[in-house]
Amino acid sequence: MTSLFACQHFLLCCRRTAVWHWICQHVPKTLASPEVVPKCMRPCKSISPPYTSSNFILTPIVKNHSGVRHFHSAAHLSSQDVELTSIRYGVQRLPFSSLSDKDLEFFESVLPGRVITDVDILASYNVDWMKSVRGFSKVLLRPQTTEEVSHVLRYCSERNLAVNPQGGNTGLVGGSVPVFDEIILSTTLMNKVISFDEVSGILTCQAGCVLENLNDYAEERDFIMPLDLGAKGSCHIGGNVATNAGGLRLLRYGSLRGTVLGLEVVLADGTVLNCLTPLRKDNTGYDLKQLFIGSEGTLGVITSVAILCPRKPRAVNVAFLGCANFSHVLQVFKKCRGMLGEILSAFEFMDEECMNAVTKHTPLSNPLKASSFYIVTETSGSNAVHDEAKLNDFLQEAMDSDLVTDGTVATEETKIKALWSLRERIAEALTHEGTVYKYDISVPVEHIYDLVPILRTKLGKKVTSVVGYGHLGDGNLHLNVTSRRHDNALQESIETYVYKWTADHHGSISAEHGLGFKKKDFIYFSKPLAAVQMMQQFKAMLDPKGILNPYKTLPSEPK
Amino acid sequence: MTSLFACQHFLLCCRRTAVWHWICQHVPKTLASPEVVPKCMRPCKSISPPYTSSNFILTPIVKNHSGVRHFHSAAHLSSQDVELTSIRYGVQRLPFSSLSDKDLEFFESVLPGRVITDVDILASYNVDWMKSVRGFSKVLLRPQTTEEVSHVLRYCSERNLAVNPQGGNTGLVGGSVPVFDEIILSTTLMNKVISFDEVSGILTCQAGCVLENLNDYAEERDFIMPLDLGAKGSCHIGGNVATNAGGLRLLRYGSLRGTVLGLEVVLADGTVLNCLTPLRKDNTGYDLKQLFIGSEGTLGVITSVAILCPRKPRAVNVAFLGCANFSHVLQVFKKCRGMLGEILSAFEFMDEECMNAVTKHTPLSNPLKASSFYIVTETSGSNAVHDEAKLNDFLQEAMDSDLVTDGTVATEETKIKALWSLRERIAEALTHEGTVYKYDISVPVEHIYDLVPILRTKLGKKVTSVVGYGHLGDGNLHLNVTSRRHDNALQESIETYVYKWTADHHGSISAEHGLGFKKKDFIYFSKPLAAVQMMQQFKAMLDPKGILNPYKTLPSEPK
Repeated sequence: MTSLFACQHFLLCCRRTAVWHWICQHVPKTLASPEVVPKCMRPCKSISPPYTSSNFILTPIVKNHSGVRHFHSAAHLSSQDVELTSIRYGVQRLPFSSLSDKDLEFFESVLPGRVITDVDILASYNVDWMKSVRGFSKVLLRPQTTEEVSHVLRYCSERNLAVNPQGGNTGLVGGSVPVFDEIILSTTLMNKVISFDEVSGILTCQAGCVLENLNDYAEERDFIMPLDLGAKGSCHIGGNVATNAGGLRLLRYGSLRGTVLGLEVVLADGTVLNCLTPLRKDNTGYDLKQLFIGSEGTLGVITSVAILCPRKPRAVNVAFLGCANFSHVLQVFKKCRGMLGEILSAFEFMDEECMNAVTKHTPLSNPLKASSFYIVTETSGSNAVHDEAKLNDFLQEAMDSDLVTDGTVATEETKIKALWSLRERIAEALTHEGTVYKYDISVPVEHIYDLVPILRTKLGKKVTSVVGYGHLGDGNLHLNVTSRRHDNALQESIETYVYKWTADHHGSISAEHGLGFKKKDFIYFSKPLAAVQMMQQFKAMLDPKGILNPYKTLPSEPK
Repeated sequence: MTSLFACQHFLLCCRRTAVWHWICQHVPKTLASPEVVPKCMRPCKSISPPYTSSNFILTPIVKNHSGVRHFHSAAHLSSQDVELTSIRYGVQRLPFSSLSDKDLEFFESVLPGRVITDVDILASYNVDWMKSVRGFSKVLLRPQTTEEVSHVLRYCSERNLAVNPQGGNTGLVGGSVPVFDEIILSTTLMNKVISFDEVSGILTCQAGCVLENLNDYAEERDFIMPLDLGAKGSCHIGGNVATNAGGLRLLRYGSLRGTVLGLEVVLADGTVLNCLTPLRKDNTGYDLKQLFIGSEGTLGVITSVAILCPRKPRAVNVAFLGCANFSHVLQVFKKCRGMLGEILSAFEFMDEECMNAVTKHTPLSNPLKASSFYIVTETSGSNAVHDEAKLNDFLQEAMDSDLVTDGTVATEETKIKALWSLRERIAEALTHEGTVYKYDISVPVEHIYDLVPILRTKLGKKVTSVVGYGHLGDGNLHLNVTSRRHDNALQESIETYVYKWTADHHGSISAEHGLGFKKKDFIYFSKPLAAVQMMQQFKAMLDPKGILNPYKTLPSEPK
């Protein structure tokens, strides 16, 4: 058995003693029949009694996977295939000035060699990751410092030139690309770590740092970033903050409103607002930085961020589970939260249709026998033995109560990443099905999946699929509808229905993606008139000419 | 031994196996000499070998304590003894209208029987808990509903009458009482729980609910409030939110900016702003509620709050430790955070002078042998056995490395409360020494205690004492200086020094208490001019007549 334990794959089995074990499962294939356990999964000799089809098995789940979690672009579409936003949505350009040669000269004087007008380079900055909206900006600016951003904005403000701030361009609501010819102000070259306090875990960095790079940096110092999301390999921390990104760790570490301790922001007129003090507590006046968190670049350009990093957990386990129905998913969640308590760091779910899309369009395969729903739950803790014991107890109980039909557990980093990929690559997989209508709603957790079957019945064969997945612990459903090609009428009918249903259930029509360009006019489904009017007052106060990310976040027409 | 284990007092001892145990210590007195262990503490027969004076012992620590944690008022001073704020600080009244009989008639029509003009009742609402500032309001209004607050504010706005919103009046910076004759708008009768979602733990309630009552309510449903502070028996949740209260659980559950999910606020003109949606995630537009968190009633009156409650931990342990010097306190903190990880829920410290004040002015006694510093550290977790094992390991290592000189551990609720009282009653104890000059600063954690010895040397015999305590884990020092009677010149010299020192160390001059009346003019020590100007713009936009809590938060003179 020694050599078996040395390998990285484990099998979780049940014993009469009610103790769960992770046991290596690289064993002769003859020991189990293919009917009993899925392909590639074989129980080890020691698993007895009882060994049944309901036991938990970890298996190599990836057919051809590098183990690296990156955001996979919808690269099968060319940028030029994407209809211009202004045409598809029939938007009128606002009366901003147009870029002149003199403007380019000025930018070149401030950012020598970092003023890009090459059409081919600009193409990818003008279109979103989803290939769903496209602008036609003529220039991309790449500042390296806050002062450069300030110079650019002061000039643009004076000249009445519209500006589209852009981070990693991984947004899903068309907030990160121009609608018309807005100047693209990219944070790509603002990628320096300014300081890291190894006692408090407070990281201060420029806005253009890629989230995954920051996490690697923090991990080298025994910390982690408090947020994690599928786009981590591309998205910028400034963009994360500007969109108040949620992601996979929110359940454990809370939202950016709590973990972002400081911000430096350049306002529309070039004024630098320094609220960057890296302190855990500071109650001196109004917390101005909060207004910029989640404002999608419409109130100012975030240039630096101070963020509180939690300690790197000493032990991480991921369980990937199958459930027969959604009621069981909810019951597993309640049990999981009660029994895993403080070590629970994620609880995600996806439906069967998501799994079908992932296994069809990516190199990943389903490690479990087919189930109606799948759960990814993660523990992160400071003591591997304690965490394992808690997880064992939870899995034992979940199995005993027949809430879970199949499952697999990973403790080793590569395997954990592979399990997470199944969840993280859903968005990418769906883009291969044609047009994806994306909805990101939050409702009280008991109702989180209600809308999916309703919509399937309502839409029938008008669409290719209606799928649901998301952050169950946060009451956040990602509802995606796919159809062969874009259809404005279909989109409108889905939108109206989804947003009204959400409003009727006291939910949010955008839980974490923001409003950007695509959802700005639906704001009234989640916010009362008085609130929207106050937002408009803030916008008018901070950006009186409206040059910052125009056509985004706030509704185009007054109600 | 059976009967010994049945009692509530435990003793923690060290064995060669490096495992710590909580063992009952009600044993024959002959087994230990008074020199070896403090009075009232006796080791049980099983403790051997070795048993030394450095072992951890829990003892009955309270001479005469009810076990109830309430905020004890500085009741030894009469309200009338307190000099009027306007005189002590030489403030000029702003040109608001004065209260007329017609105004009283209107208020009585909106709030029948809840318009208080009785001078004796008004006295306690006109003076702060510290008995340090006093106004002379002529009327106290007690609305029960948001609509009543809206009616009152609309009228006051039209009449240009200044309003002082008041919660539990437990603030420490003079923010919660009138400076002149502002109308006191109390949330005392707005004390209803609106809803509680037992799946998500989201509590929605009126602003006047007392924090401790809410915590009791949540505990009955297996949850707790995400904040806890000494004033919990009196303070209102609305006041907590309006002042962005920190407190004892911030280390574990984060700040109110993350846990407050929704707010209902009435603006100065009576407009009701409903941002109360109880959702964990909602990215539809700017997060307006954040502006009201920590705005100290100067931008609007918070009428309802939706807040995320964590699960009630199944096991809580508190260790009270002694350290020989502050360097050891810091080392214990690092060790504690590393070894207790996710179950660490508080790490507080107090110096010897704090302990002297508490034992002198309250019925509490020191459970440990005299030390230069004391630590209260708390664990909250889901598995008592695991938590105890983690705490054992930590204490073993702290003892082995001689970082801790003495200690005691409590697992039972009454004993835990008793240990916490030593920390929580410092503020009250100090009021018995005369005038208390309170500073609440945050600096990088390594420098958190530096200022105390510096100030002792600087002030010498001009003051009675200079003491330091606070939330070490948050880098938050409560620095208190006491003198026999109030002395403006002394206060000014301390303030200037403390704030300059804090600014030089990139700290905040008000970590959690806010600016209120007393600290508003020091804002520039922690915030740049551009930030203060933006705050003033917000104030002008939301409260153009400046009727809401005037003379507070923002500086009186433009810079």
